[in-house]
Amino acid sequence: MDKTVNNDKISVTVPMQGAKKHAIRPRPYMTGRVGKRTVLPQGARLPRKAPPLGNLKFIPLGGLGEIGKNMYAIEYGDDIVVIDSGLMFPDEEMLGIDYVIPDISYLEENKAKVRAILITHGHEDHIGALPFVLAKLDVPVYSARLTLGMIEAKLAEAMPRYHPRLIEVVAGERIKLGVFGVTFISVCHSIPDALGIAVETPLGVVLHTGDFKIDPTPVDNHVTDYSAFAELGRRGVLLLASDSTNAERDGFTKSEKSLIGAIDNLLRTYRNRRIIISAFASNLHRVQLVLDAAARFNRKVIFAGRSMVNNVELAIRLGYLHADAETIVPLAEMDDYPESRLVIMTTGSQGEPFSGLVLMSKGAHHRVKLNSRDVVALFASAIPGNEKMVSSTINRLFELGCEVLYGREAGLHVSGHASREELKMLLSMVRPKYFVPVHGEYRMQVRHSQLAEEVGVPEKNIFIMSNGDVLTISPEGASVRTKVQAGAVLVDGMALGEKEGSILKERQELSENGVLVVSATIDKRGKLIGDPYFETYGQIHFRDAESMRQEFCEAVRRAVRHDSGADDEYLKKQIVLRCKELLRKYLHSASPVIPIITRLD
Amino acid sequence: MDKTVNNDKISVTVPMQGAKKHAIRPRPYMTGRVGKRTVLPQGARLPRKAPPLGNLKFIPLGGLGEIGKNMYAIEYGDDIVVIDSGLMFPDEEMLGIDYVIPDISYLEENKAKVRAILITHGHEDHIGALPFVLAKLDVPVYSARLTLGMIEAKLAEAMPRYHPRLIEVVAGERIKLGVFGVTFISVCHSIPDALGIAVETPLGVVLHTGDFKIDPTPVDNHVTDYSAFAELGRRGVLLLASDSTNAERDGFTKSEKSLIGAIDNLLRTYRNRRIIISAFASNLHRVQLVLDAAARFNRKVIFAGRSMVNNVELAIRLGYLHADAETIVPLAEMDDYPESRLVIMTTGSQGEPFSGLVLMSKGAHHRVKLNSRDVVALFASAIPGNEKMVSSTINRLFELGCEVLYGREAGLHVSGHASREELKMLLSMVRPKYFVPVHGEYRMQVRHSQLAEEVGVPEKNIFIMSNGDVLTISPEGASVRTKVQAGAVLVDGMALGEKEGSILKERQELSENGVLVVSATIDKRGKLIGDPYFETYGQIHFRDAESMRQEFCEAVRRAVRHDSGADDEYLKKQIVLRCKELLRKYLHSASPVIPIITRLD
Repeated sequence: MDKTVNNDKISVTVPMQGAKKHAIRPRPYMTGRVGKRTVLPQGARLPRKAPPLGNLKFIPLGGLGEIGKNMYAIEYGDDIVVIDSGLMFPDEEMLGIDYVIPDISYLEENKAKVRAILITHGHEDHIGALPFVLAKLDVPVYSARLTLGMIEAKLAEAMPRYHPRLIEVVAGERIKLGVFGVTFISVCHSIPDALGIAVETPLGVVLHTGDFKIDPTPVDNHVTDYSAFAELGRRGVLLLASDSTNAERDGFTKSEKSLIGAIDNLLRTYRNRRIIISAFASNLHRVQLVLDAAARFNRKVIFAGRSMVNNVELAIRLGYLHADAETIVPLAEMDDYPESRLVIMTTGSQGEPFSGLVLMSKGAHHRVKLNSRDVVALFASAIPGNEKMVSSTINRLFELGCEVLYGREAGLHVSGHASREELKMLLSMVRPKYFVPVHGEYRMQVRHSQLAEEVGVPEKNIFIMSNGDVLTISPEGASVRTKVQAGAVLVDGMALGEKEGSILKERQELSENGVLVVSATIDKRGKLIGDPYFETYGQIHFRDAESMRQEFCEAVRRAVRHDSGADDEYLKKQIVLRCKELLRKYLHSASPVIPIITRLD
Repeated sequence: MDKTVNNDKISVTVPMQGAKKHAIRPRPYMTGRVGKRTVLPQGARLPRKAPPLGNLKFIPLGGLGEIGKNMYAIEYGDDIVVIDSGLMFPDEEMLGIDYVIPDISYLEENKAKVRAILITHGHEDHIGALPFVLAKLDVPVYSARLTLGMIEAKLAEAMPRYHPRLIEVVAGERIKLGVFGVTFISVCHSIPDALGIAVETPLGVVLHTGDFKIDPTPVDNHVTDYSAFAELGRRGVLLLASDSTNAERDGFTKSEKSLIGAIDNLLRTYRNRRIIISAFASNLHRVQLVLDAAARFNRKVIFAGRSMVNNVELAIRLGYLHADAETIVPLAEMDDYPESRLVIMTTGSQGEPFSGLVLMSKGAHHRVKLNSRDVVALFASAIPGNEKMVSSTINRLFELGCEVLYGREAGLHVSGHASREELKMLLSMVRPKYFVPVHGEYRMQVRHSQLAEEVGVPEKNIFIMSNGDVLTISPEGASVRTKVQAGAVLVDGMALGEKEGSILKERQELSENGVLVVSATIDKRGKLIGDPYFETYGQIHFRDAESMRQEFCEAVRRAVRHDSGADDEYLKKQIVLRCKELLRKYLHSASPVIPIITRLD
């Protein structure tokens, strides 16, 4: 087996839709060690080593039992390829945490094996951890052009001195990475240039769908490449890992183009008013729909919000957005046009604190001041967990007197993920031997598994995995028996945090109870000097009652009397115990107590 | 005008559906000062004082711009009646707060005027603040029997030594309270015995709908009393205050009875398996549907969870639930029956931490251990803000291997509030002169207002009010020009908290950053003794780096050198400033700093 890192590109082996168009573009990101190209005959296989064959491992390091921080490792012998490297936004309980990334201890321990990171598409839950991962694993990153553009911008900001090896691939292309042959497949999602990834291994093909929907009429006409999936299915897929996000949703997900009518209707109904649209900055399909509609209705489009402006600039530069030069107007020139000729497109559809729409709703946007003549349309539904932030934003917009269009009944959003009928369709095209539902919470994994059973995958060949589980496949069969270290690393500002939750537990206690600080000064003979001193922060209770203060003083005095001869750690523990008991008894409070001992010698 | 408290009961003036049945029951709660009954001729009015007429005030003290803590005061001259007295469950940002109640400063200042609290129905957002309010305003409470039963249980627990004056009324009854005549009207909601309230004032009728839906086939056959509303409309309603909860939802809300088919289907499909149903403990209609279905399918029903058991016991005792004696089985006898003959009904449909279903999902319920043979059905949808808790509960149930039925597609929930078509129907029956949408967030108030305009209420007669706003109505017109104190009082355990948010701000800071305590001991000459001492809690950063510790020491030393002559408050402030600067600079942290100064004389 070839142990050297081998990033050679090999020719297209499966004829795929939509591939040729891309292939003629210059490739700004092909900066890695790209070697010679080898044209293999159709259906050719990688050279097989002599038997016995080794074991293939599929190891999710993030993305299972959750929506977020996707990362999947595929390992055979001395080679590992990693699919995606995403972050997750924190739960409410993760106090003060900015985001969460996968624990990559396993990859660090096997650093020498990791050949590359393959990225399916440019959403944060697939690329967001790259600055942290590349700092530890300096490997090449393969993806499509737009995705690499987003990654490049992210890395330039987060690690300006690092020179990433970003290698552009196009759908239909096949590359060789160690023992693996990797083919990229066009899929349709809520961001352009999304890819599924087929990894040929000595034991067979591992197929990862990436995030996808089966939209027969996507905005950029790059449909999910049915024929590639069907062809892979025909040849035989060993393991399918498929997107479970909408495994609870019946039927088919609507086409992005179904929004055309809704957008036209919006511009027609409010033809005399300024229209503000908020959407995900990465949903360039939707941006394209708005640009097209604006041109039809003779409106100018202004982009507001840093990520919106950056993504649009990038997409125009790389050829993913098309608009007449005069349709887009800079924010600074807003006043040159009558309100009724403007569409302002901005971020904030999830109520994110510093997004464009939220600032506007608070009257805090530096340029756009909303008023009762404005119409605001939210082109997204709230992601679970964001409902309250979205709801407050909408309330504030109503308070400003805006006409607000939002929610299911407005019909301004479609999902980017396949619903149950589409998932079944994919399963029945691919007919995998083994199936792992990925990218979803536990219940979505279960519901997706049930679909796989419905289309004929035997129950024993379906694996509902957790992060860190190792699915080991040999020629004899497959099983999940071992586990590697995996989990969540918390990122707070600049620092990587502890893997386990003692800090969070402490913050939780503080957040619910505030804190009591007790300071005691002790002389040479172990006697308390003066009264102990108390200070609180974030407490409702411990404010007035002098008699209660006296009780606390007495408790500390008793502790010092009994234990001032002991070491400070023991004495502190006694003070904390006594004070906590009083807090519980009198105030029903579980406030943390911080003891400070000052000894005078 | 009669200034004495006058709780006389007067006869029914408006013929109302469903009233007679109630009227013959004994009235366990008629314990207040009930005086003589006066039969007035149909259509009679209260005796009018000589002109000029005074002003009528409608003052929401809670429930506007929010879902929760409903409380509305109606004031004329020297009389005030209060409708509802509810609590609200806290936002995530209200760290450690158990719940929130209305600020009743205005009522306390006008204590002598308050004649009674009238309660529309027994949900927490309508009765939950009573223990706090009655402690300050010892006035009689009027409501229907079941509601009073719930209030009695709540008060017995919260204030065992208090003897409330609970006075039972039935739909259709009219009582006199000071200058006001008050008539109660049957409405249909997700709890039995819900009432609308019509308050006759010298200027005209103020009609408060309570929480309602127009369900033509309610489970207990007590329909919303259209004819009473229509009759009031015919005679003329001065001000309508109507439930805005579902003012964003198109169409009609489905009947509670539409669930019968779904429940039958559930019991039929899983006829060989134990079924666990979670629902709101107060939704006794739904409990009745389950009892009826269980009897049809020859199943026993076991109730689990304190509030579920208490409510069912109360409802059976008061005649609001009907079941054969042998249908209900105590939890302790669960093992006497085969699993396939059991329905367990419990709380936890919102994922509440210590509810029955959540304990079961964690394997922590003392009796019910779930396994892969069980079927769990959630008979409620997640209230905004609870999505994540519900979602984790469902995931845990899937992990136990249960079959779980949940969400919109399961069809196991209908709302208890009127949708847009019903709201329009009510508006057009009542045809009020003035309209105030109540019980809703701002955007719901706005959407409800738009409906009122559609049915012909002039825009200038519609008031979108905030808590504390005073709507003043005189014979000449109505306006909102003044405000009284109103807002949220935070309840943390036993203590009533501050009205404004400094405590919460402090907890927020602690929760996001942890805390740094700095202790400095200073001798007689103002010199620092030894090194300052640092202690952290809930911080990721301030752990190792010795050089950083030295910088903090130096910062404190400098502060002491410059300012130890000043008073302690000033010195503390300087230490905090210097430490915060270092925290910001090196750790990007906005952690609070608590300084402790020990001076030795």
